[in-house]
Amino acid sequence: MLEDAAITVMERCELLGSISEESGRLTRPYGSRSLREAGDRVAGWMRATGMSTRRDAAGNLIGRYEGAGDRTLVLGSHLDTVRDAGKYDGQLGVLAALACVQRLHECGERLPFAIEVVAFADEEGLRFGTTYLGSSVYAGAFNPELLDYRDAEGVSISEAVRRFGGDPDALAGDGRPGGDLIGYLELHIEQGPVLERLGAPVGIVSGITGLSRIGVGFTGKAGHAGTVPMQDRRDALCAAAEFVLEAESAAKSEPGAVATVGEISALPGAGNVIPGEARLSLDLRHQDDATRERLRERLKRRAREIADLRGCAGSWQVRQESGTVPCDPELSGLLERAVQSAGISAHRLPSGAGHDAAQVAELAPVAMLFVRCKEGISHNPAESVSKEDVAAALDVLERFLQLLAEGEGPHRGGSRTMC
Amino acid sequence: MLEDAAITVMERCELLGSISEESGRLTRPYGSRSLREAGDRVAGWMRATGMSTRRDAAGNLIGRYEGAGDRTLVLGSHLDTVRDAGKYDGQLGVLAALACVQRLHECGERLPFAIEVVAFADEEGLRFGTTYLGSSVYAGAFNPELLDYRDAEGVSISEAVRRFGGDPDALAGDGRPGGDLIGYLELHIEQGPVLERLGAPVGIVSGITGLSRIGVGFTGKAGHAGTVPMQDRRDALCAAAEFVLEAESAAKSEPGAVATVGEISALPGAGNVIPGEARLSLDLRHQDDATRERLRERLKRRAREIADLRGCAGSWQVRQESGTVPCDPELSGLLERAVQSAGISAHRLPSGAGHDAAQVAELAPVAMLFVRCKEGISHNPAESVSKEDVAAALDVLERFLQLLAEGEGPHRGGSRTMC
Repeated sequence: MLEDAAITVMERCELLGSISEESGRLTRPYGSRSLREAGDRVAGWMRATGMSTRRDAAGNLIGRYEGAGDRTLVLGSHLDTVRDAGKYDGQLGVLAALACVQRLHECGERLPFAIEVVAFADEEGLRFGTTYLGSSVYAGAFNPELLDYRDAEGVSISEAVRRFGGDPDALAGDGRPGGDLIGYLELHIEQGPVLERLGAPVGIVSGITGLSRIGVGFTGKAGHAGTVPMQDRRDALCAAAEFVLEAESAAKSEPGAVATVGEISALPGAGNVIPGEARLSLDLRHQDDATRERLRERLKRRAREIADLRGCAGSWQVRQESGTVPCDPELSGLLERAVQSAGISAHRLPSGAGHDAAQVAELAPVAMLFVRCKEGISHNPAESVSKEDVAAALDVLERFLQLLAEGEGPHRGGSRTMC
Repeated sequence: MLEDAAITVMERCELLGSISEESGRLTRPYGSRSLREAGDRVAGWMRATGMSTRRDAAGNLIGRYEGAGDRTLVLGSHLDTVRDAGKYDGQLGVLAALACVQRLHECGERLPFAIEVVAFADEEGLRFGTTYLGSSVYAGAFNPELLDYRDAEGVSISEAVRRFGGDPDALAGDGRPGGDLIGYLELHIEQGPVLERLGAPVGIVSGITGLSRIGVGFTGKAGHAGTVPMQDRRDALCAAAEFVLEAESAAKSEPGAVATVGEISALPGAGNVIPGEARLSLDLRHQDDATRERLRERLKRRAREIADLRGCAGSWQVRQESGTVPCDPELSGLLERAVQSAGISAHRLPSGAGHDAAQVAELAPVAMLFVRCKEGISHNPAESVSKEDVAAALDVLERFLQLLAEGEGPHRGGSRTMC
């Protein structure tokens, strides 16, 4: 029964959600002990459903369920999380894919194509400020310049990959060959309010919004909080504060744009010392790449102006950038037919959040199915998804597999409901 | 020779400056291993100059050099530091006091009064955001409400005192009895630009500027950086940034006022998550208490307004507050005579920085001697003092002791230059 499968998925989200680096809240960065443990758990479930498993050079977990033909459909999402995360972002996509394979396995059914379920090891970029680290390796699009990026403790990506059991030297060459791929379908929570407003359990993603992630720094002069007159100060944090508000108002003035400063620090970081240095992260998104780039240049110019006016030095490092990725029309059309055949109105919506699909698009056609989440809350422990919506999403996934099977070759399975 | 004594003081500043919690920079918070080590080193020097040593319930180190009479003069400063500190702030006052006793000891000279040299254990408040922790215990003015304050790792002051070998239950009752005290004289670097501008090696402090140290917090709503439209956000860091600039402009509009935000944090603290919480420290100073209080109330009101306008909750916690403390006219007059007798023009100046003397003033009359520092730079590794100025300061200290000895009883010493 689909309901049983949905219950299993919910229970597994709960279970994986308790595997964390921090007690009492879910934080699972790339390369961590908890990510290893969560991956091992998923690998065990994969093997129990008749899949072979392997890990690539980055530590992405790949389960394969063979099919009757030579071609392969990839399903999946990521297992890493943000700090103090919810338990559906990423996890739900991996576990829903696994549930579909499990139902095939229970019936002894083989589709005309193999299914590969991928649990990507780093989508959020919590540790190194670089998203898609996992899927970029899988897609053969890894940028070796990232190897020297360091986390807050000074550990490089190279070293983190090694400690995680991977091979930093193989990252650039360990992309999956794409010749046999039909495409990649990712199920993910919406992380926004649109489906809830529409009253729809699922939606079809039209494209994934491009983004820029930038490290901004200001260097002024540290000094004693009690003895340096206001007019003699070169306070780096005041410059940073001005920039935070500038980013906010710039994004507000550009319809559809969002700008977020999620990290900030002042150094040396004592209450009675004027900050000599301030650093912050800037996350910039817009569906239209040209608009995002214009906004980025405007803020870069403003950062320089703020620094100049305050006698500070400014720094600007584009850490990561990706253009808007449209979903594949053919796969998305098939997904729409699956949604409609499940008796659900088919809604198309853009994804303001980035997803591994944006990276896998370099390798194969991609499609995405969004699942409604409560109040659009995500990246927050209050993230919530209903069992009924998960059941509806599993239904759509199975219908999609069936439609694809009908198109791919002789229909070897049983009825649509499987067993 | 005074020059030799100055060289010893400089060398000891260097040596103590290398005892730190952080490699490559001087950071010595209350209760740390490095503070213990620095204190042990100073205690050894004290005993080598004929002093008895003890530690009080807070871990303040107290060395005593007996005199011919019953009364006691206290000299000293603090041994804790800010983060990435210079090596003269605090240390110089302790080591200069020690140098004076050493010169008495070398001649076998006893003054008509005992000298107590105190190395206070927490003046900066780096760890708990509370200055004068050490001297408040010594002065019998410790506030027991502070016992539950916690550091960044969640360790309470109570626990930190215990781990440091002190007794949290005795803090409030372990004040030094004041009956025998002549007064307290603290030598300290100026940490500002006045003496350098005047071309004077030392100056006499007229009073210590009052200050307010406040913890300010904003709570909004965390969310995904890509999916929550700008107009729907309740970004706690944007509120904090607005407040940082508000504090700056409020202080600029009030002559003589300084306001500093030295610490800031955004939570959960990831580049792709809208901050749901932001916290910052506010340090506010003005020579006139009423002006400081008016400024504090204005900023408190603005914090509330900013929070309200952004749909955030605001918090405001006054962590510490002290009024401006005037130095004792009589002791300061004696100090002025000592300066003049050393052939130096006597300048009086207020102290924008707080000092242990402000706290000890609750117990005894206080005076302070400032030593010129390069470009007024302090709370910074570039903090610099010349050997010549240290020699001049030691000369003034000795003349002060001699003048006090002449006033206190029959002159038992040798010539002014000691031996």
